[in-house]
Order: sequence, then C-alpha cells, then structure tokens
Amino acid sequence: MEMNELNPDVLLVQPSALRVFDHEISQDPEIIKLTLGEPDFNVPDHVKQAAIASINADQSHYPYFWGIQALREAASTYYREKFGYQYSADQIVCTVGATEGLSATFKTLFQPGEGVLIPAPAYPVYKALASINHLVPIMVDTTETGCVLTPQQVNEAIAAHPDVTIKGVVITDPSNPTGVVYSKAQLSALVPVFRDHQIWVISDEIYGELTYGVKHYSLSQWLPDQTIVINGLSKSHAMTGWRIGFAFGPTGVIDQIAKTHQFQVTTPTSIVQHAAVEALTHGQNDAAVMRQVYEQRCQYLTDSLTKLGISYVEPKGAFYIFMKIPERCHQDSFTFARQLAKNYHVGLMPGAPFGDSQALRISYASSNENLHAAVDALTKELVRDGVLAK
Amino acid sequence: MEMNELNPDVLLVQPSALRVFDHEISQDPEIIKLTLGEPDFNVPDHVKQAAIASINADQSHYPYFWGIQALREAASTYYREKFGYQYSADQIVCTVGATEGLSATFKTLFQPGEGVLIPAPAYPVYKALASINHLVPIMVDTTETGCVLTPQQVNEAIAAHPDVTIKGVVITDPSNPTGVVYSKAQLSALVPVFRDHQIWVISDEIYGELTYGVKHYSLSQWLPDQTIVINGLSKSHAMTGWRIGFAFGPTGVIDQIAKTHQFQVTTPTSIVQHAAVEALTHGQNDAAVMRQVYEQRCQYLTDSLTKLGISYVEPKGAFYIFMKIPERCHQDSFTFARQLAKNYHVGLMPGAPFGDSQALRISYASSNENLHAAVDALTKELVRDGVLAK
Repeated sequence: MEMNELNPDVLLVQPSALRVFDHEISQDPEIIKLTLGEPDFNVPDHVKQAAIASINADQSHYPYFWGIQALREAASTYYREKFGYQYSADQIVCTVGATEGLSATFKTLFQPGEGVLIPAPAYPVYKALASINHLVPIMVDTTETGCVLTPQQVNEAIAAHPDVTIKGVVITDPSNPTGVVYSKAQLSALVPVFRDHQIWVISDEIYGELTYGVKHYSLSQWLPDQTIVINGLSKSHAMTGWRIGFAFGPTGVIDQIAKTHQFQVTTPTSIVQHAAVEALTHGQNDAAVMRQVYEQRCQYLTDSLTKLGISYVEPKGAFYIFMKIPERCHQDSFTFARQLAKNYHVGLMPGAPFGDSQALRISYASSNENLHAAVDALTKELVRDGVLAK
Repeated sequence: MEMNELNPDVLLVQPSALRVFDHEISQDPEIIKLTLGEPDFNVPDHVKQAAIASINADQSHYPYFWGIQALREAASTYYREKFGYQYSADQIVCTVGATEGLSATFKTLFQPGEGVLIPAPAYPVYKALASINHLVPIMVDTTETGCVLTPQQVNEAIAAHPDVTIKGVVITDPSNPTGVVYSKAQLSALVPVFRDHQIWVISDEIYGELTYGVKHYSLSQWLPDQTIVINGLSKSHAMTGWRIGFAFGPTGVIDQIAKTHQFQVTTPTSIVQHAAVEALTHGQNDAAVMRQVYEQRCQYLTDSLTKLGISYVEPKGAFYIFMKIPERCHQDSFTFARQLAKNYHVGLMPGAPFGDSQALRISYASSNENLHAAVDALTKELVRDGVLAK
C-alpha cells in the first residue's frame, strides 16, 4: 500500500510543532516546562466532586450529541453574564475542548479552496486546520500594529489575493501567543470590513476570563449573524485534560456545525458534561483566584525581561509573554530554545511555529519557582552570548 | 451570510437518522427504548473507582495526543490476548470513542472522490463519514449472502463502478445492525480480493467481545499492512458515554491518523484514559457477565419472533436483531416504528437508515421487562394489522 496515496491534505500538514517540541524536551527528567498553554492549577474541588457524583450516579450513557440540555442552558446563562453573548441553549454545541469546536467550524463554514485570514503571530493550529480542510490560510502580519488586526490589513490582504475567495478570519482574543487583548474600539473598527466582505468570524475567546486591568469584548456582540464563538473550560476552570468546550453560532449555521461535530466524536464525555454544569452554575468566580496569581506572575516576568533589556509584546491577558530573542544572540527560536533546555533544563516555546522565528513564548501558567528558573536561564544565556555583562 | 455557501459536503450529509429518531421518540416520557446501541449495564465498579482516583489525583492536564503511554501499552496487550491483534503501543491512537477513530481514519486514508465499499445493511455513520469527506460510498447489498460480504460481491461492485477508484471497505464484525459474525473462512476468503485491489480495510470490531457460541476473528490477522482496526470500551465495558476508543494500524499510516486526530480533538478526556488503563489491565472478564445476559435475551427474542412468524437475520453477536416487517403490514420501517411508539410506547429502530426499509433493528441491550414489552407491542400490532389472529 502506497503511503503517498493517502489524503494529501493530511500528509502535507505538519503535526503540531508545539506538542512535538514539548514532547522532545520532556525526555529530560529535570526539565522545567513553560511550554504548553496549560494552567498549573487543578480543577476546582466542587467541579471534581460533581464529576465524582456523576460517576457514582452512573451517568455513563450517550448524552444527546449537542450536549446535555442542562449544560447548554448553563453555558447560555454563564457566558451571557460574563461577556454578553446572545446565544440561547439551542445555539450552543458542547465540544471536546476548544479544538474540536474549531475543527468542526473550519470543516463546516468553508468550501475547499476558500481563504481564511489568520492574524500572526498566531496559535499554529488555525493554519493546520485550514490546510487539512483544503483551505488557503492567509497569514496577516500584525507585528507593526501591536499584534492587533486592523481594517487596513484586512483590505490589503484581500487586495493581495485576488485569486482567493476570502471567507473567514480567526480572531484570538485574548491572544495566544502575545497576550494582547483587543479594545472595544479595535474590535468595532473591524466590523464594517468583515460585514462588507461577508467574512465569517471565528472568535476564539478561550482566554476570555484571563485579562488584567482591561475588559474582554466579544465580536459576536456586533456580528451575531456571522460569528462563531469558541470557548470552554480549559483555561477558566483549569480543565484542559477534561476536554470540554463550546461552539456558539447563529441558528442554521450552528446546526450544520453540530452535524459535523456528531460525525467527528458523537459527543464529549458524559461525566465531564455533568461536572461542567457545576462549573458554570456555581463556579462563576473560579477563574478569579487564578487570574490574580497570573497577573502577579505576568508583572514579575515583564519586570525581569525589562531589566534584561529583552523586548516583548505588552501582555494584557491569557498567560503568555511573547519575547524577542536579542539580535546579538544570533540564533533562531528553535536553536535558542533547545539551548535553554540543554544548558539550564528550562523549556520555553520557540516562536517560529507562531510565525516569528526571532521570538519565544513564555507560558506563566507555571509556579513562581519555575518562572525564577526561566529568568535565571535567560540571564545566563544572555551572558554566555555576550549580550549581558557577567 | 448565505447558508448555501457553507461546505456542501456538510450541507448534503444527513444528520444521524438513528439519533434523530431516538430523540423524537424520547419526547414521550413513557417510551421504552430499544433503539440506541447502548448497554443497559453500568461501568464496572473498579473502573469507576479508577476514574475517581484519577480525579482525586488531579490528572487533569493534557495527556500526549496519541493517548497516555500506559493506556496504549495496556491496549496492545489486551487486544493481543483477546483477538490476536499484532499492534505495539506506538501503533495505537486513543480516540474519543470509536466514532472519532472512524472519522480520523476516513479523513486520512482517502483522497476526495475515491470510493469506499460499505456492505449493507450497515451502520449509517459509515456512509455519512464517506460523504462528509467527499468520498463515494458504494453500498453493497449482502442480504442474499446472509449479510456477509463475499469476494464475488466485491468484484461485482468494482466492475459496476469503472469510473470510481475504490480504495477502501468497511467490515463491521460482529455486525451492527444484523448481529452477524464472520467466520474465519468468510474473512480469509476476502483477503485475496482486498490485497489484489489494494483496498484499505476499516475493520470495526467494537462488538468483538460480544459473540455467542462463535469466535471473533480480526481481518488484521491476514492484512496487517492494509487494515485499520477500530475498537474501544463502549460496548465491552459499557462505557459509551465516557468516550474512549482506539485506532490500530501499521506504522506510517497510523501516524497520519494520529495527526488528523490531534487536530480534531487534541486527545480524549484524561481521567477516562486513566480509568481505561484499569479496564484493560484488570477488567478482562468484565464483558463476560454482560455477554451471558445478552445471549439469554437474544434467545428469548429469536424464540418470540419465530413464534410470531417474523423472519430475521440469525444473530451470533453484538446486541441486535434485524427483523423483517411482515409484508402484510404494508408499512415502511419509519411508519411501522412510529406506530409502535405511538400505540404501545415501544421504540424500535427503523431499518431504512441501515439500508432496509422493510426491517427494524431491536437492541436487546435493554432489560428483560423492556424486551417483553417489545414482543407484546409487536404481537398487538400484528393482530391489529390482521397478520396474526386475535
């Protein structure tokens, strides 16, 4: 059987460089990882107890494929109160984390060959999902505009690709990897251009509860009929491994996404769905404790980087700092990150998969001790490279 | 935004008629359902305890996307001992139930436009997965050969579709909806034709542990290099709602399936993966108790149908009986099934979605009391239709 006869869209897409790099450095038993986007907090106790109760109550049978009614109603209320989403329970599909919601959305919204705008630096899964669905990912460099997409950049990207029908855009807000949070003005400025060009907005708001001193707004507020919102409990309730997320969208379109979802997975794990009801009905403040800790860590890191003379994108949310590798290090992001891992057992994520081979992403969803180790490693490496004096 | 501009492969596929019908009749609070393929047993207690221990141990972080190593090793051993699979841990991907394994496999193995043979009567998700991946599902009627695919039927199907490159076949063994189990001779007879035509075998063996008086064989034994086996704990350990399955395949190909899987879901729920290790290492006999009960129920149903003069495919496995609606009822499967639901509050699955509009599927993964109610309802309906004397 010929391997090269498999689906070329699958063969050509690269496996997630983030997870491959994380797996690579994990072979070092001493490694201190600030790589994956994963809270170092545990699932809140009341949510764990709800999962245990669900197990003991034998709620092990197939939930309806959209997700159980109680969860969709809880999500409708919770996100309306948090961020002003205007979605009723029957406009919400429960997904296997945000990833599955994104996958079903990319598959459903677009026809093969159509283009999707991806503001960069970007979480690399968007590009992979575009490619694996035979779409054209169009990376839009936003580094000159503070890592915020502007209407002008959208217009320029459309003009630069006259042969591609551009049908979608991904907005990650708060942003992974930069921690940038769009202001109300920045979002509303994008509304006319998306409306005029009939561009579907995939609004990934998984870090929505993690903002520092600024408020999170959802593009769905302005464009309810052409926005699919992706959210979930991975970051707000530290439930990454439990795999529960939501796709919100206008009636008709969300029904099609639900169909794709059904044939992808049937439904997320029943006991997690029941636990998620608890998280959304009694865990409105679960993220607050984490947010406070993240904010302190963020402050510590930005202070430390500033002292080291390292530049970075000013973070306002999520739990990442996207820092520039000093030019005098003369190293690309993978070489530099491997160096840090090898010499100091500290794992930071290379920037190349996000679209900047001169940057690193630091996740501060990690203990203070680990953050100190990271700053230490960076300091030593800059000394070694002659960027800092000994 | 125009709905008809969404992905036509998604728009054109029908939502699962099984789940839609099940949902429809579930609106009747008195309904007795023998519809979905779902054990009425609960998850074995030792597996529930393992899940609870995993929750308490805060194993809530991202597992590696292939699944945790312990689970892949446990699956390698378990299925080797049960059915003689020859797959090492690094040839196994842990999936969100069998559905997600099937979805990733359909997406990965084939190029758009290629054909996949589906012996009918068939579980309707195969056809949907072919369509949603822009493949050509070629239904092969096997009712004349005891619902077992034969080499001759394969050759005829190939000859009948000269314009389609046929690259795959789905074998469901034990079969849903018929309960047929392929004999060793029937499977080995298919090997040359699949090998000569370089046809990928998707071998859905999710009911492998549920056979009555006959042994289950896996086509992977003969065709290890061109078979993807789909299995999981939904039926053997009554874990449908927990969503854990496996895809097994040759090195190289399984890596591509793992990649597709990663972008579909990241990974199955962590706590379920840990519980599944327990199921596979200490739950080798969990299915035995259920199998015994299913076998008794099967006997009761076949006896009862025979007494009523209703013909059916002789079941040897799974937990279904595929019965013919007597001709004198003059009703198609949906009308007949709705009649039973309306008049007697008994839900049996219409045969049409499986490919036979004159049949019904009875799931006997249901209590004896429910089975009695079903036989009662059928009896009354046949009297009402004048097929049986009062």
